[in-house]
Amino acid sequence: MARIVMKFGGTSVADLERIRNVARRVKAEFERGNDVAVIVSAMAGVTNGLVSQVTEAAQIADLREYDVVVSSGEQVTAGLLAIVLQDMGVDARSWLGWQIPMETDDSHGSARIQNIDCEEFDRRFSARQVAVVAGFQGISSQGRITTLGRGGSDTSAVALAAALNADRCDIYTDVDGVYTCDPRIVAKARKLDKITYEEMLELASLGAKVLQTRSVEMAMKRQVRVQVLSSFEDKPGTLVVDEDEIVEQAVVSGIAYSRDEAKITLLGVDDKPGVAAKIFGPLADNAINVDMIVQNVSTHEARTDLTFTVVKNDLSRAVKVLQQNQEELSYVDLIWDPEVVKVSVIGVGMRSHAGVALTMFRALAEKGINIQVISTSEIKVSVLVAEEYTELALRSLHTVYGLDSA
Amino acid sequence: MARIVMKFGGTSVADLERIRNVARRVKAEFERGNDVAVIVSAMAGVTNGLVSQVTEAAQIADLREYDVVVSSGEQVTAGLLAIVLQDMGVDARSWLGWQIPMETDDSHGSARIQNIDCEEFDRRFSARQVAVVAGFQGISSQGRITTLGRGGSDTSAVALAAALNADRCDIYTDVDGVYTCDPRIVAKARKLDKITYEEMLELASLGAKVLQTRSVEMAMKRQVRVQVLSSFEDKPGTLVVDEDEIVEQAVVSGIAYSRDEAKITLLGVDDKPGVAAKIFGPLADNAINVDMIVQNVSTHEARTDLTFTVVKNDLSRAVKVLQQNQEELSYVDLIWDPEVVKVSVIGVGMRSHAGVALTMFRALAEKGINIQVISTSEIKVSVLVAEEYTELALRSLHTVYGLDSA
Repeated sequence: MARIVMKFGGTSVADLERIRNVARRVKAEFERGNDVAVIVSAMAGVTNGLVSQVTEAAQIADLREYDVVVSSGEQVTAGLLAIVLQDMGVDARSWLGWQIPMETDDSHGSARIQNIDCEEFDRRFSARQVAVVAGFQGISSQGRITTLGRGGSDTSAVALAAALNADRCDIYTDVDGVYTCDPRIVAKARKLDKITYEEMLELASLGAKVLQTRSVEMAMKRQVRVQVLSSFEDKPGTLVVDEDEIVEQAVVSGIAYSRDEAKITLLGVDDKPGVAAKIFGPLADNAINVDMIVQNVSTHEARTDLTFTVVKNDLSRAVKVLQQNQEELSYVDLIWDPEVVKVSVIGVGMRSHAGVALTMFRALAEKGINIQVISTSEIKVSVLVAEEYTELALRSLHTVYGLDSA
Repeated sequence: MARIVMKFGGTSVADLERIRNVARRVKAEFERGNDVAVIVSAMAGVTNGLVSQVTEAAQIADLREYDVVVSSGEQVTAGLLAIVLQDMGVDARSWLGWQIPMETDDSHGSARIQNIDCEEFDRRFSARQVAVVAGFQGISSQGRITTLGRGGSDTSAVALAAALNADRCDIYTDVDGVYTCDPRIVAKARKLDKITYEEMLELASLGAKVLQTRSVEMAMKRQVRVQVLSSFEDKPGTLVVDEDEIVEQAVVSGIAYSRDEAKITLLGVDDKPGVAAKIFGPLADNAINVDMIVQNVSTHEARTDLTFTVVKNDLSRAVKVLQQNQEELSYVDLIWDPEVVKVSVIGVGMRSHAGVALTMFRALAEKGINIQVISTSEIKVSVLVAEEYTELALRSLHTVYGLDSA
């Protein structure tokens, strides 16, 4: 007997037929004698519709009321799934964030879970009842509904699994696991049986939209065994685990990409202490996040060029902020380019293997792909290249690192 | 300065443009210096959609989960209206049933309000905040969401008005008040400026769908001044008040009709004590309500005919139950007719005026309309006639009782 948390995303509960499919999976897990808690998202499209209504209602909406409106989608799914489970002979009841309670801080729209009291769940499990929990939502210390940010149901699931001391947290989605690369681009991409938390974290934050980044952080911190698998197929997915659970660790586990960034270069910047702070201060003041940053060595006259990336949506605002501050920043020219892609190779194995970055640079050079910006961490190397090379770069790297399926 | 409860039905909040219209009305009331609580229904069509989803999910759904699903519509409207009000510069916040709390009994799907704690509202009113309350919903002693039955937002409004000691409870709807008769049928129908609680109660229960019956009962019991008015026009509606507030009371205030009943006749029933209980027992056991009942005098051989009406939807079930019990009920024949209409004249004035029923019978006879069943109460006379006479009967009676507009 085990204790399992199952989480189903929006496409897995998109209509009643799919909710019945979900109920059958839950029933099977329950009939194995397991304690089962199910976390559900809103039916596909519902949350987007609610967000549109809020946006149409007012340009700037009170986030406390935004949360009241957008949390309703998960409430509906939870009720419907409980009804369908009961109809299949499985005792089940729905739980809303405030009923558990799933206590969060007061950061409406992107609240963080602080505490989950699971005593009642323990009692219900003993009485062989399935808990159907509305994901994405919690309750603040003020007694108001909060939401956890887009993709927040993943975090609800991992947090509940941690609080329940669950043996596994199964994240059911519309893909059957985590791949070495996006299979829509790299046909030879392989599904990974296992991946480490660290790698999954990099993948999530680098644009692979399988899990919400925060849910992976929490799984790592709380040591929750997460499995990503398909709600439409009957086969094992990808387990997200500790490094020591993976016997043969590849040097590179996966290759991610993000078309979501844009490049900005300030030419002829003063090369003296404090200049970076002067440049990035106004951006931060405008809530514009900067990702990759490179500063060239000073060329002549103590001037340098500074290149960095921002999210594409922020590009025009960032350019405006920099132009307004040209005098103070004393740069000579400002250029920008939204047609770039960030390609990253990820693997905890590279900690103990030299030459991973070199292999990447050589492979790209061989294909005539110019690297514009480089940034590295302990377990990843990211480069910025022209967007038109996306497919070529991904496929070349996938082959070079020996990831291609047979 | 007054304290006003305003309630807006589904058609009044059907889309964001209409929600803005509602917000403008709320703002106007608020800017007169009044304390304002607003009760909102779900946007038109939303609750029906949610009910369909539940029905599709399972033939017999757990009513606790039904309530979780169908209460979500009001939650969305409350959040959106609070956002729009804030956008117009009016401080407002949404309140869900469990947040107030609007305490009800545990009769899910048709719960009754037991207690409303309004202390927090008093504080918020003093701070000049508008309370936007999700109608139709409450919370049970088990901490589960309850709903008050279709049209329940009317009851939410009246109950809140009573708890808040409000000066008025304005029910905004898509008609501009209560009419002497359905204006779609009787062109000369007039809007009433005032109507008594008792009359409104009869009208509501006899098929005029302006207010939920239970909300009128509560208004009468708790002495809440209710006004029915249009959310689309700027003119006074109909005040529902105590009898002594109406100076010149007409004998008949209005004429209602219901096409929702069907007639059943048992021919040749034993005319002896206990037979009625024997007949209506099996119907009650099958949750079939019987409305009008007449039993003819015994004709010969101590046998009689018994006629009664049931809701049209229950007709086939009722017939089946009676046929299954034919032996025990020992009737000779069973006939039924769904093509009937119940026409009722209503007025507290008839308490002190004889001949009201006679006027009705004569008027119908003059038009050649045969009366099939009669039932009366202190302030109403109802007759069952063939459905094809609906319009003729209503128009004749409207004229006979002097209700026609000039």
